[in-house]
Amino acid sequence: MNAIEELASLLARLPGIGRKSALRVTYHLLKADDAFAAALAERIGSLKESVKFCSICGSYTESDPCPVCGAADRDRRLICVVEQPQDVLTIEASREYHGLYHVLGGLLSPLDGVGPDRLRIVSLVSRIRAGGISEIVVATNPTVEGDTTALYLKKTLEKEGVAVTRLATGIPVGGDLEYADRLTLARSFRGRTAF
Amino acid sequence: MNAIEELASLLARLPGIGRKSALRVTYHLLKADDAFAAALAERIGSLKESVKFCSICGSYTESDPCPVCGAADRDRRLICVVEQPQDVLTIEASREYHGLYHVLGGLLSPLDGVGPDRLRIVSLVSRIRAGGISEIVVATNPTVEGDTTALYLKKTLEKEGVAVTRLATGIPVGGDLEYADRLTLARSFRGRTAF
Repeated sequence: MNAIEELASLLARLPGIGRKSALRVTYHLLKADDAFAAALAERIGSLKESVKFCSICGSYTESDPCPVCGAADRDRRLICVVEQPQDVLTIEASREYHGLYHVLGGLLSPLDGVGPDRLRIVSLVSRIRAGGISEIVVATNPTVEGDTTALYLKKTLEKEGVAVTRLATGIPVGGDLEYADRLTLARSFRGRTAF
Repeated sequence: MNAIEELASLLARLPGIGRKSALRVTYHLLKADDAFAAALAERIGSLKESVKFCSICGSYTESDPCPVCGAADRDRRLICVVEQPQDVLTIEASREYHGLYHVLGGLLSPLDGVGPDRLRIVSLVSRIRAGGISEIVVATNPTVEGDTTALYLKKTLEKEGVAVTRLATGIPVGGDLEYADRLTLARSFRGRTAF
């Protein structure tokens, strides 16, 4: 196997990159200037060294605590609970939320043997007990595991005296009733709002 | 800009990888084992060092001459002329052709100022004059530039006493007459074959 095929095989193991795209990327790199390929190689090699987890919220960060946990201008009464570190970046990119975060590091999945002890729930409870938190916004995906986890968090955290809410489920903006599945439609009826 | 965004920006400059895929790949690398990221970084960094151009045919190779030019079991009377080095790999992958290759390094494009002197045509003529070549198969794409280049090669090379042929243009296997454009249909009529 030669250098072109070896790189293409590695690239084809990345998500969303098939065999043909991997070859296309390889040919592109062969034609691209050396500085670009060198920068890309350097960044890939050093990525995991540079990026750590925030000791408070568990999201990706290069400094500890992360910029969100350390910021003076965030609403420190709100904690948004997400499944994985990249969810924090997705929500931050929307610029719609100004509270704090907490990464669970997974979702409850009894079938796969993932119980509450495998998620970062103890540290979430500690943060609530430390005081000042009024609401927990659960932002797990509206899937079976996401729903189960949300219900478990509601049951556990309401005992700690905080409000527990969840992101609205419904028809996406720009979506079409015709293409909405039955469950989404049912949830958007249940969650209907005055306007 | 942090390490995640920096890598995602670099990845988004690769062909076929948009902003969202670039982030997805970055998150994947964060979760992937260190050896994979290290191997990928190393391969990208060393790609252009490992891969050179064959001094005879001009295709990508790690040894000079390339395995095709150096092979004893290829039909040395045939030279397939292609636009770019990766075309050689595409044709080799089909296992349909057993002759030699010659990479032009581009196509004639008078509007962009690309004349015959900018392509590897002198070296192709030299190979023919060295003797033993009976046919040149022109495998440029059936586009305006590809057609122009093919015609130019036909005119130039037939003087050298070799047959000049071109890959057949027509309806692709599995294609549908209904979706064939007028030009493709016209060419497949002109190129109709007995069966």
